[in-house]
Amino acid sequence: MDLTRLMLRLYFGEMMIGPGKAQLLEGIAREGSISAAGRAMGMSYKRAWQLVETMNAGFVAPVVESTRGGAQGGGAHLTETGQAVLTAYRALEARVTEAGSAEIAALAALVAKDA
Amino acid sequence: MDLTRLMLRLYFGEMMIGPGKAQLLEGIAREGSISAAGRAMGMSYKRAWQLVETMNAGFVAPVVESTRGGAQGGGAHLTETGQAVLTAYRALEARVTEAGSAEIAALAALVAKDA
Repeated sequence: MDLTRLMLRLYFGEMMIGPGKAQLLEGIAREGSISAAGRAMGMSYKRAWQLVETMNAGFVAPVVESTRGGAQGGGAHLTETGQAVLTAYRALEARVTEAGSAEIAALAALVAKDA
Repeated sequence: MDLTRLMLRLYFGEMMIGPGKAQLLEGIAREGSISAAGRAMGMSYKRAWQLVETMNAGFVAPVVESTRGGAQGGGAHLTETGQAVLTAYRALEARVTEAGSAEIAALAALVAKDA
């Protein structure tokens, strides 16, 4: 049975970065909006904002900047810090599957075929 | 802020292996008992048995063998499959921190000092 999903969570003290936050950051970069990014993940507006606020407070600088109002009705984008967090997290995920391919294959071979 | 915990979950279809199951397998190997291993993790007897049953059904062969009764009051131990699963999982965790040290350091440097 092949690997279908790998989930990596990193804790730095109280600050956690995992698949949900990484996906939200990607969504914000793509959608230009916190609420649209949350919606694309089936996440409430409130929850998406809470996660952004947690990240903005937990990193050395805000990861997302948002603008309210204006002709375009406001929007949001990743800061340099936000982009760096996302890039490092995705790179780490890639390392796991590259560097750990032998261990992942060993586990896959041990999983029942009908699992 | 240094990395304080890394959590790795792997999904192979419906079968998931993560820190809880790995710790339970280690506990069984150490304690020689499913209930004692669960207790050491603050886990109920029922929950520990459920996890063992899930693993026994989800891998190509049982990961834990238990004996009931007898002079020693029964006990449990890891099978060869159980030991192989545990070894591969722990090796994969080690790979992440080794091969991903640059990415982990990059994230650590981005986390607020008081996080």
